[in-house]
Amino acid sequence: MTKITFIGAGSLEFTSELMRDILTFPLLEDATISLMDIHAGRLEWAKKGVEKLIAAGKRPATVEATLDRAEALKNADVVLTTILAGNTEVWRHDIEIPKKYGVDINVGDTRGPSGIFRFLRTINPMMEIVEDMEKYCPKAVLLNYTNPMAMLCAALQRQTFIPVTGLCHSVQGTAAMLAKWIGAPFKEIDYLCAGINHQAWYLDYRWNGEDAYPLIYKAVTERPEIYNAEPVRNEMYLALGKYVTESSGHNSEYNPWFRKRPDLIEKYCTHGTNWNPGEYAYILKQYQHNEATWQEQVKERLEQPLTEQDLQRGNEYAAYIINALKGGEMFKFNGNVRNTQLITNLPEGACVEVPVVVDRAGFHPIHVGALPAECALLTQLSSGIEEMAITASLAGDPTMVYRAIAHDPLTAAVLSLAEIRQMTNELFAQHKDHLPQFKHHAV
Amino acid sequence: MTKITFIGAGSLEFTSELMRDILTFPLLEDATISLMDIHAGRLEWAKKGVEKLIAAGKRPATVEATLDRAEALKNADVVLTTILAGNTEVWRHDIEIPKKYGVDINVGDTRGPSGIFRFLRTINPMMEIVEDMEKYCPKAVLLNYTNPMAMLCAALQRQTFIPVTGLCHSVQGTAAMLAKWIGAPFKEIDYLCAGINHQAWYLDYRWNGEDAYPLIYKAVTERPEIYNAEPVRNEMYLALGKYVTESSGHNSEYNPWFRKRPDLIEKYCTHGTNWNPGEYAYILKQYQHNEATWQEQVKERLEQPLTEQDLQRGNEYAAYIINALKGGEMFKFNGNVRNTQLITNLPEGACVEVPVVVDRAGFHPIHVGALPAECALLTQLSSGIEEMAITASLAGDPTMVYRAIAHDPLTAAVLSLAEIRQMTNELFAQHKDHLPQFKHHAV
Amino acid sequence: MTKITFIGAGSLEFTSELMRDILTFPLLEDATISLMDIHAGRLEWAKKGVEKLIAAGKRPATVEATLDRAEALKNADVVLTTILAGNTEVWRHDIEIPKKYGVDINVGDTRGPSGIFRFLRTINPMMEIVEDMEKYCPKAVLLNYTNPMAMLCAALQRQTFIPVTGLCHSVQGTAAMLAKWIGAPFKEIDYLCAGINHQAWYLDYRWNGEDAYPLIYKAVTERPEIYNAEPVRNEMYLALGKYVTESSGHNSEYNPWFRKRPDLIEKYCTHGTNWNPGEYAYILKQYQHNEATWQEQVKERLEQPLTEQDLQRGNEYAAYIINALKGGEMFKFNGNVRNTQLITNLPEGACVEVPVVVDRAGFHPIHVGALPAECALLTQLSSGIEEMAITASLAGDPTMVYRAIAHDPLTAAVLSLAEIRQMTNELFAQHKDHLPQFKHHAV
Amino acid sequence: MTKITFIGAGSLEFTSELMRDILTFPLLEDATISLMDIHAGRLEWAKKGVEKLIAAGKRPATVEATLDRAEALKNADVVLTTILAGNTEVWRHDIEIPKKYGVDINVGDTRGPSGIFRFLRTINPMMEIVEDMEKYCPKAVLLNYTNPMAMLCAALQRQTFIPVTGLCHSVQGTAAMLAKWIGAPFKEIDYLCAGINHQAWYLDYRWNGEDAYPLIYKAVTERPEIYNAEPVRNEMYLALGKYVTESSGHNSEYNPWFRKRPDLIEKYCTHGTNWNPGEYAYILKQYQHNEATWQEQVKERLEQPLTEQDLQRGNEYAAYIINALKGGEMFKFNGNVRNTQLITNLPEGACVEVPVVVDRAGFHPIHVGALPAECALLTQLSSGIEEMAITASLAGDPTMVYRAIAHDPLTAAVLSLAEIRQMTNELFAQHKDHLPQFKHHAV
Repeated sequence: MTKITFIGAGSLEFTSELMRDILTFPLLEDATISLMDIHAGRLEWAKKGVEKLIAAGKRPATVEATLDRAEALKNADVVLTTILAGNTEVWRHDIEIPKKYGVDINVGDTRGPSGIFRFLRTINPMMEIVEDMEKYCPKAVLLNYTNPMAMLCAALQRQTFIPVTGLCHSVQGTAAMLAKWIGAPFKEIDYLCAGINHQAWYLDYRWNGEDAYPLIYKAVTERPEIYNAEPVRNEMYLALGKYVTESSGHNSEYNPWFRKRPDLIEKYCTHGTNWNPGEYAYILKQYQHNEATWQEQVKERLEQPLTEQDLQRGNEYAAYIINALKGGEMFKFNGNVRNTQLITNLPEGACVEVPVVVDRAGFHPIHVGALPAECALLTQLSSGIEEMAITASLAGDPTMVYRAIAHDPLTAAVLSLAEIRQMTNELFAQHKDHLPQFKHHAV
Repeated sequence: MTKITFIGAGSLEFTSELMRDILTFPLLEDATISLMDIHAGRLEWAKKGVEKLIAAGKRPATVEATLDRAEALKNADVVLTTILAGNTEVWRHDIEIPKKYGVDINVGDTRGPSGIFRFLRTINPMMEIVEDMEKYCPKAVLLNYTNPMAMLCAALQRQTFIPVTGLCHSVQGTAAMLAKWIGAPFKEIDYLCAGINHQAWYLDYRWNGEDAYPLIYKAVTERPEIYNAEPVRNEMYLALGKYVTESSGHNSEYNPWFRKRPDLIEKYCTHGTNWNPGEYAYILKQYQHNEATWQEQVKERLEQPLTEQDLQRGNEYAAYIINALKGGEMFKFNGNVRNTQLITNLPEGACVEVPVVVDRAGFHPIHVGALPAECALLTQLSSGIEEMAITASLAGDPTMVYRAIAHDPLTAAVLSLAEIRQMTNELFAQHKDHLPQFKHHAV
Repeated sequence: MTKITFIGAGSLEFTSELMRDILTFPLLEDATISLMDIHAGRLEWAKKGVEKLIAAGKRPATVEATLDRAEALKNADVVLTTILAGNTEVWRHDIEIPKKYGVDINVGDTRGPSGIFRFLRTINPMMEIVEDMEKYCPKAVLLNYTNPMAMLCAALQRQTFIPVTGLCHSVQGTAAMLAKWIGAPFKEIDYLCAGINHQAWYLDYRWNGEDAYPLIYKAVTERPEIYNAEPVRNEMYLALGKYVTESSGHNSEYNPWFRKRPDLIEKYCTHGTNWNPGEYAYILKQYQHNEATWQEQVKERLEQPLTEQDLQRGNEYAAYIINALKGGEMFKFNGNVRNTQLITNLPEGACVEVPVVVDRAGFHPIHVGALPAECALLTQLSSGIEEMAITASLAGDPTMVYRAIAHDPLTAAVLSLAEIRQMTNELFAQHKDHLPQFKHHAV
Repeated sequence: MTKITFIGAGSLEFTSELMRDILTFPLLEDATISLMDIHAGRLEWAKKGVEKLIAAGKRPATVEATLDRAEALKNADVVLTTILAGNTEVWRHDIEIPKKYGVDINVGDTRGPSGIFRFLRTINPMMEIVEDMEKYCPKAVLLNYTNPMAMLCAALQRQTFIPVTGLCHSVQGTAAMLAKWIGAPFKEIDYLCAGINHQAWYLDYRWNGEDAYPLIYKAVTERPEIYNAEPVRNEMYLALGKYVTESSGHNSEYNPWFRKRPDLIEKYCTHGTNWNPGEYAYILKQYQHNEATWQEQVKERLEQPLTEQDLQRGNEYAAYIINALKGGEMFKFNGNVRNTQLITNLPEGACVEVPVVVDRAGFHPIHVGALPAECALLTQLSSGIEEMAITASLAGDPTMVYRAIAHDPLTAAVLSLAEIRQMTNELFAQHKDHLPQFKHHAV
């Protein structure tokens, strides 16, 4: 029997979707689901949602909810983390302080000044979770969904013996989008995608074994509705020759080309027709908006009866992985794992996103080789900055945080070194209570 | 007896200075000096200058001048290159075209759009020289002073068996400047400097064996005249913690922090009190100015008698190296050589600037290890871009030139991808006659 | 529809077994099987065997037989090679010449003087096959069963764009033997096995997720019938701590510990109760014996009716791999592939035996890391010798063959350098007509 | 003023020779020489020898002698170690126990069972010396002459911040011998020598810039007196193509080719005409012989007056190194240093013997690249075994000692795994009082 623990179970939508998937695997239908959150109200809702799915699916699974992390972790086989370290009143400053200096952030959960400070705060509770796992379920694996993915996973992977794999939907999501663009049934598509989370590249994209990039090129250059769906990523593709994972708005934060001038934001980050074209503070505004209304929404959703459709397995990787770990069908996915010469031109020990095969014997990352230069230059810079931020956190050294931010391509395209120092100091001053690992909080 | 060949001997000042140094070494005093240039007038002046030095020094050396490269190279022991591929009417466009797009260049001979196009033109005659060396003096070594140093040397190093070492004065020059700032006699200073040409870092700087960085910090932060001498490099040092080689103006081109906004150019690149604080097109203007007057200047200089002082050995590396190669005293210098795991976090095969020991048995580069992250991030980006430009030239692929320029930190801080494409196309259109290695000239 | 080509189809047993497996996969039941051999008689028998299987299984597959390699390869999807370059009158000298010098060989198809000369002869027809594949079926993959596996695959892998994967039964066979020893159902066993062919090591061997090495230790040390089954490998395990693939007799050739003294051969290589304990010239004698009788045996076998049992899928990897390549279930196996940092302490580019996952997108080797020192030392030596033999063949340099053999641990434990030179020269003299790649045939 | 400390100063000949060299350097003539030994009698003699040299040379140097290591080390600039951990009654068993099993050792101080046990005992006092250096002279460098060189240096280099360089005379000695053989003045010779101590290879050997290997080949093959001078090394050269450092007798221990059969010992290791052709227990017998007579010999030597000749500088590296460290002429030598990708196909972190340049700024090892395969195979095996022995000592694990010895090529050419285990246990039983780092002393 399998015990699956959700830390941050109050991420209601995620918990429900994953639960739905789990129940579709015969090997897992009698699982014990343990839900944990620090927010009692959300936890209660999460439990109700899971119970409703179990009831609808008529499976023998059981669910328990607790505010006690140790209890939730005890003897778990798999642990999933979807935590948020601090509410919007805390993390709004990750977005708003850079904006004051002219650094215009869209999401701010991955890298750049916002992502780095989110990492510096979030690594503390994440490390506590992992330490508890070493005590209460030392044979379990951790599947992390918490952002910033690459920095958190890399920092954990170098401090624990617990296998940590980071998961994200951007790889399969983008692959499906491209398939739709060229009119290919997704099951006829094969791809090799590698890089780091949110900055991974389809090194190979094939339809029935044939290179499909010429079709993608045709779609992007000849069909305006496709160009307009993803202006940022399509521009990147036209320049660099390989398609990148993660949406246009989000990607516009990770490089120097799109958000440094208001006219470029207007041109590239405003009129995209897919979700999140690139508005300032897009996710922050959503969160702020939802804060007032989420209880109503959840209540309403829970009251609706579940249809057959609602019980169908989705595309999220986690349930497939758990099934494979328990002896079910071997599964290949893109996971965020420690770089052991898997991508030879990214730093050894960084967290890379590569194909991984999982079966009963565990996770087996696949060797990729060198990223081609046109993908490597930006990815090396991103990964190098992340490594510096991790070292900064482990060493408790604020100067290294400053240096990491000074190299962020968007920040560096907007500010001078002196201005970056000032911004870094303001971020430290704002967040200092959440950053106990630093010996001092000024550069 | 030693034969030393100068290709581009019309670089009159360099030829004279090196000749002066050569004559100070007993092992070299009977050398045959072979001067070659494609400009007969300049060649004539060069020969007169050398003859004057030989006469003044009363040495048995002989000098010959020829427009025929093969003749100059025949049986040479050492070849020095100080060529300029195209006059100011050609290379002014390297500076002026980017300026039209808002990319404000100070020197433009090293990297960025200007340096890359200079490389793409200059590699052709440089490769011809090396091919001639393989034929006419296959045991000779090449000491290259031509810019862009790192790209030219790396491109040559991967195509010939001739040992190619690039030389520059920035390492010893900066080291001497720092010594003066802290009041140390230069002979009491030891340093470890490594990176790539014009972006090498003093990883260690000691006065009588003690770390002298605290003294440098004090000088930069407490003495305004020192801060003002090198505003760009001092800002970089204060941010990154290590001092960089090459002057402030030149360095302001190699990163995103100083030249992207007019106010920053005004603040950091205008009032520096050392040579070349960072004015737009600084060297181009000098060249244009000199074109009218150089003949007069040279004539005047040749007419002046030489003093004892004029015959003293200088700090340029070349003569010391030649002396060591001929069995004289072993010599340690910073040379530009092929990276064979010398700097472990720069690309294998790139051209790196590291300590090299030379003796009769040849050049012996010294292992450095990994650059610290605060120096590595920018240097990796620069070196990666250079590698891409070299590959572009070897493959004759203009798209790769575009991608290289798209990653240039200053360009990327100013322009969008579409704007960079347009600028690249304009540079290709302007220079296409000098770029026979490319199959086509548009991206 | 899939075309599967057998080169060396006259390996009758292999061809039949694989054909049986192929027909069990619905995706492959309509395959075209193309059989090719240089021996018309054997080819005829092979075809009859395949026809009998198709008829018994009532599948739509078709079979064709040809002496023309080009025809057999045309448009193949998968090519299998099980060739023998020269009959026993040729290769008996691989065994008999070393024996004259005191080097006592058991099988002689893998490494050591016998394996190296077998490689030097066999690489020539293998390379011709691959060149034909480049012409007639450039999208096909090659599954090679021909020995010496590691040297042949490595030599091919560095000369062709055709994906070459070497296959062997030793990994799954040994894993099953160990499972039986400890009383574990094989389906409850997981293992990580890595190294080079016939010298790969179970780095991890688990029963239901728990380390099973303590049980293996108990079995080997407490149950004489188990110790006696595999004296050589059990001794190696007791000394080195990890179990090795390939049988005792064969393994006794690959190291210095068992065959250098008659008393040790008697003690360790004579009384083992599993197949091939280690008799001199074991396989050669079998072949010689079979030469008189094989036609009778085959005829007899073909006349017997097939039972249900005879149509059951076996454990050979090839059919599973072909099924996965055609879009069937993903499959994990131990394959012999080019070392791209997969095993970090074996030579880059050598042929290593590691876990490989195959699916429609191709072969995905899994990163292993460093072999532990106790397995690495011998494996590095074997692999280094193999690399030298490959280089010798590519360079046509007999001296390098001598140097490779001089380092073979068994040869070196018996002979002096001068004696090894003499033996190498005798082998060259005997085989020189089969070794056109060498400029001369004496050291 | 420089303080030079000799630990193990009772190595009288070494102390005298080095002292003589030191006094020839003006920079060092006022040095303080601190002599330390645990043997008061020898220390007294050593002091007298040094005083005699100072007096004869009329230099201002001073000498002090102490039994207190801390006092000797206090404020030292350079520390030299020439210790012997245990007298002949201890280490005779390193030689005599293997002999009982048929492993016939000539010197036994470098590798193989004898060298490994010498290492396991000697690392303990060596580590104590280094710990004292960290306390009493943390800026000093250690020049180690104690054997086994490679294992001791590697073990120290990974445990201390003190720069440790190992020194030996084999490289310059062999180079001079080869020069003599070909009739070349030594000052016209250049070479590149690299590998590990006593198993380093002249990758390049030139006379006036021209490859001199053809002359060496001629000498070895055409002049019997030269072949007979070094039968073992000449055979190795004729087989492998590169000349190896260290004498024939000693080298015959390090590989499987010469000492495994009595007839081969007779043929190759008995009649060589240079020092130490390869007799069993050669050095042990010398030591035993000298024990009775050394006091007489020393006394006699001290009574003889010093001639001008006796004050001439010799070829030992140490004094040149000390002079360079103090700001004198830069010096290039072959030193034993930590492998930081210097030899790319030997283990990272092993102790390799490569060219090193020393100047006031410290030791600068020179990048060599990959050893050619014909030199690499044996050297990799030796180095891998040494790494295993070091790990065994650090982990206190006797099993790893057994595994290291099981791979020793000479041992493995003579014994079975079971016999090696028995021999290892007997060595552990004999030496257990000197091996406190091991948790138990049986395998």
